[in-house]
Amino acid sequence: METTIHSVRNPRVKLAIRLRDRRGRRQQHRIIVDGLRETTRAIQAGVRPIELFVCPPLLTESDQTELENSLNAAGVHAATVSREVFDKLAFGDRSDGVVMVAAEPRAQLTDISLPADGLVLVLESLEKPGNLGAIVRTADAAGAACVIVADAATDLFNPNAIRASAGAIFRVPLAAAAAQDVRDWLQAHQVTTYAAHVDAAIPYTAITFRGRCAVILGSESSGLSEEWRAPSVVSVAIPMLGIADSLNVSVAAAVFCYEALRQRQAGISPPHGIR
Amino acid sequence: METTIHSVRNPRVKLAIRLRDRRGRRQQHRIIVDGLRETTRAIQAGVRPIELFVCPPLLTESDQTELENSLNAAGVHAATVSREVFDKLAFGDRSDGVVMVAAEPRAQLTDISLPADGLVLVLESLEKPGNLGAIVRTADAAGAACVIVADAATDLFNPNAIRASAGAIFRVPLAAAAAQDVRDWLQAHQVTTYAAHVDAAIPYTAITFRGRCAVILGSESSGLSEEWRAPSVVSVAIPMLGIADSLNVSVAAAVFCYEALRQRQAGISPPHGIR
Repeated sequence: METTIHSVRNPRVKLAIRLRDRRGRRQQHRIIVDGLRETTRAIQAGVRPIELFVCPPLLTESDQTELENSLNAAGVHAATVSREVFDKLAFGDRSDGVVMVAAEPRAQLTDISLPADGLVLVLESLEKPGNLGAIVRTADAAGAACVIVADAATDLFNPNAIRASAGAIFRVPLAAAAAQDVRDWLQAHQVTTYAAHVDAAIPYTAITFRGRCAVILGSESSGLSEEWRAPSVVSVAIPMLGIADSLNVSVAAAVFCYEALRQRQAGISPPHGIR
Repeated sequence: METTIHSVRNPRVKLAIRLRDRRGRRQQHRIIVDGLRETTRAIQAGVRPIELFVCPPLLTESDQTELENSLNAAGVHAATVSREVFDKLAFGDRSDGVVMVAAEPRAQLTDISLPADGLVLVLESLEKPGNLGAIVRTADAAGAACVIVADAATDLFNPNAIRASAGAIFRVPLAAAAAQDVRDWLQAHQVTTYAAHVDAAIPYTAITFRGRCAVILGSESSGLSEEWRAPSVVSVAIPMLGIADSLNVSVAAAVFCYEALRQRQAGISPPHGIR
């Protein structure tokens, strides 16, 4: 490791601190990754660090070893920083001594290669980066093919999204696009499309997740827009027996993803399959 | 409505502000409920307000009507407060003009009446109130019988839990108890118990949620303790195909709750049912 950086006026540090704001990330086309787990997963997924700031007193011995192995494997050098500098770089109390700066990953529809049985999650106008991260983490675990944000109301690589994804955001194919482009893409790829509407007559358990499927979920505040009601789109609902008129969007995503995985792993078709 | 309260030194306001801290809630045995939806659902669920503070300029006209109907039905009087006073009472930017103070609801195991086919969610050492709230919201929607927090590491009626539950926390039977008392209670009520361990050999899809069942989930940071490995407890796992070694606890709860509901609504037994 190099000489310790002690000044928050160090130009590399100043540039990195600006990445805490969306404006800074947009100007620099860079992202900032907080945390050892997130950083090592990003590097494992092929993300190349531009900067890697480490505050050794904050790292446990085993974390230090894990980090060094990961850095050596990737041929990456870390810069050590003082506690004061680190506190400016990292998110307050959630930090564990590692912050990485990297180029913003590409997230274009054209980059996504969709398998023949790929499950696609489309999130329309999603607002909360924490929900995006949680959904990506679930999508990774449940084997979904990709996550697409339509008409995004947050930036994909917001530090909260990265953190909530536990690093899975660097592994799951991800794209942001205008909603109409997403609809065109789904059609071009012959994806059977299910839109989650709370008032739909068909429960999600009655559908068979066969071949290429997409599940479209609406935003936290206003649900799914009416543009997703079309002859080519099947409206489906998750049953809700209680007082609430909606589920948390990351919970809804999990219910869909794991029902698809259940059906696929068991080779089961539900008794009332509509396809 | 009464005269508007303009001073943050008003004794009723001062007492309510202290409820933002856990210490204040513990001292007063009271809770503070933020938001119109949460407040009306609490009142509908039988919670009696001790104080109800309203800041009319923050309420939309339809919100005002909804609130008045709800208050009239419950015979409750609201105190109007100035914007300055309200800002001290409420959680910053998430507020919509209504804050309620109520007695802390009871949450004892002995209060829970478990139906013959009740699904019980047990959360061990849960740390984040937001996760508790999200789980309660899902439990309500999926028709779970109750949520029990074992060895709680957060207070049940933390404002973040109330908010994340969208008010469902006042409707779903809820209890906090020592983990050993929870195990005794499950045994006494002849509840078939499934403990979620990431390394379990049996997938959750292979079990049949028949009769009284409990699903035990561990904390965000350390998973489930070894005390839940016992001959009377079946260890089950949610399959994870990606890089992550765990799911978000509220996602795991949703996957279990909705698989139980799916089986019960369809009358299906999975092909590899172990019971």
